[in-house]
Amino acid sequence: MSAPRNRQVLLKSRPDGEPTEGNFEIVEGTIPEPAAGQFVARTIYLSLDPYMRGLMNDRESYVEPAKLGEPMPGGAVGQVTRSNHPDYEEGDFVLGDWGWREYGVSDGSGATRKVDPADGPLSYALGVLGMPGMTAYTGLLNLGRPEPGETVVVAAASGAVGSVVGQVGKIKGCRVVGIAGGERKCRYVADELGFDACLDHREPDLPGRLKAACPDGIDVYFENVGGPVFDAVLPLLNRFARVPVCGLVAQYNATELPPGPDRVPLLMQEILVKRLAFEGFIVWDFADQWEEFVADMGGWVRDGLVKYREDVTDGLENAPRQLIGLLKGENFGKKIIRVGADPTPPGRA
Amino acid sequence: MSAPRNRQVLLKSRPDGEPTEGNFEIVEGTIPEPAAGQFVARTIYLSLDPYMRGLMNDRESYVEPAKLGEPMPGGAVGQVTRSNHPDYEEGDFVLGDWGWREYGVSDGSGATRKVDPADGPLSYALGVLGMPGMTAYTGLLNLGRPEPGETVVVAAASGAVGSVVGQVGKIKGCRVVGIAGGERKCRYVADELGFDACLDHREPDLPGRLKAACPDGIDVYFENVGGPVFDAVLPLLNRFARVPVCGLVAQYNATELPPGPDRVPLLMQEILVKRLAFEGFIVWDFADQWEEFVADMGGWVRDGLVKYREDVTDGLENAPRQLIGLLKGENFGKKIIRVGADPTPPGRA
Repeated sequence: MSAPRNRQVLLKSRPDGEPTEGNFEIVEGTIPEPAAGQFVARTIYLSLDPYMRGLMNDRESYVEPAKLGEPMPGGAVGQVTRSNHPDYEEGDFVLGDWGWREYGVSDGSGATRKVDPADGPLSYALGVLGMPGMTAYTGLLNLGRPEPGETVVVAAASGAVGSVVGQVGKIKGCRVVGIAGGERKCRYVADELGFDACLDHREPDLPGRLKAACPDGIDVYFENVGGPVFDAVLPLLNRFARVPVCGLVAQYNATELPPGPDRVPLLMQEILVKRLAFEGFIVWDFADQWEEFVADMGGWVRDGLVKYREDVTDGLENAPRQLIGLLKGENFGKKIIRVGADPTPPGRA
Repeated sequence: MSAPRNRQVLLKSRPDGEPTEGNFEIVEGTIPEPAAGQFVARTIYLSLDPYMRGLMNDRESYVEPAKLGEPMPGGAVGQVTRSNHPDYEEGDFVLGDWGWREYGVSDGSGATRKVDPADGPLSYALGVLGMPGMTAYTGLLNLGRPEPGETVVVAAASGAVGSVVGQVGKIKGCRVVGIAGGERKCRYVADELGFDACLDHREPDLPGRLKAACPDGIDVYFENVGGPVFDAVLPLLNRFARVPVCGLVAQYNATELPPGPDRVPLLMQEILVKRLAFEGFIVWDFADQWEEFVADMGGWVRDGLVKYREDVTDGLENAPRQLIGLLKGENFGKKIIRVGADPTPPGRA
């Protein structure tokens, strides 16, 4: 009998601008043995997220760069196959950070935790009930501080983070305007997610349409894309508007700055005159709000107040191409790679 | 007997770029009569401040634009000469906003309040114990939130706001690095005000010298100038650094944006990756902290923990030229115009 394979996707080279499949390499390894205090898990779902583009650079950011010749890092949900860890036993479902491989080993440290299938589909631990959902929740509530009647704007509005930002904004009594790529996504955001409006950034005159959709200006702009959306938002920000800066996916592949003039003085002037608050964050800055997040978001998902859409692709080998597409907005909903069979019943959400 | 004159400086035209004396006009009017509920005051000191450049534009900012053909607005300290106001009587010293004229009338509204000569020299109500001091105090403490051992950087460090920012930073246990124009100012800031270092922005390689002066990076940058100082500061900001945005005097006279590339994406990237907080404010956003400010700052000035320097020019007619000079950093200390005789004993501070 041949040894079971353990396919892995390695970072082979660092991209110059837009990543290509050639930056990745698929190899087969052996399934690791758990040492004392470790467990081994079989990957079921892998999360693809925009921040992974940053990992591919050889530059310290808010996360360690991925290492050349090693598997791409990233969150995954799996099932424990062997355990020498006192808290994990065979069959347990776990969230872990062993990255892009079919089998991973973990000592339970870091973001590792058990996943209870009773809380929802396993993959939700990578989305609305996990890092992206918590990113939306903590960024909007701590830094955006939306008040009833205010206007919240968020781009990538059908995505894992944007969709939750908007729906939590609605729960908080705000007017919520989304921005997304394409008519189909926009219809979903407005009709299914209940945003007050959703604008297609691929259509002409985003600034004019955004102004019309925000007759009282913008009080909270949850920044996760940058680029032309930011340019359209800036003149509409109200006095004392808050801009949580969560991501800048529109510029992640850029290899140089755009041509001038240099608008930094203009941005600073706007910050001064309108008393704007721009604040960068990553989700783990608010790690101590995890329990509160799980209680709130779990309830909202159960009650249908927060809807959630996944875009699932089968096969670890497809992860590179899907990440490349994600950075171009080709996904429709939270991007998930199904690496192995999910033994739980089909999701109820 | 000829009627007493009431000289006034009017805004005659709006500047295009750097203001000139031709933008102002000096006229003589009559001394107003106080209606019921009003008092008339004789101006003793007039305050000149960088924000006044913004008033000269015909563009709504955080303050109403000055009106053409009317006296320039601004804070002044005077003495009541006639009163029909129940709370003010002849001889009272008052802070008011009747602007650039020898005699003003007030109904006691707005920022008007009595000034007690026992609190310090009358002119201090326009500086360390008034709007500029409160700007430094509220911006640094509410938005800068300096912690002991952190590094605070402030430019215009010998000026009305910057000097107080730095000294309050020292009181809070920080390493404080100032930036000022010219060796004389820098020596004063380091030797007299007790900053840990002060760099002359007119000397070459500010970025390199600033880096050397901030071996642990920068945790709080109190932004009151913009321009090349900001450019030198940005790469040195630490994770979770705070940037209260108070003023941008280096760019107030600019008529166009600087050439490219457009560094807005770079700034946003820094905000994201380092989780920076940029927040604009004006002093009146914190108006409810007035009592606390007066108690703290009054004590610090009395105890010599906060030192304060004024740059006084006699004669209302010199206000235009002195404002033009202020915008170029020609003043050394808080710029004050002595419009009329000060009947109080010479200052003790």
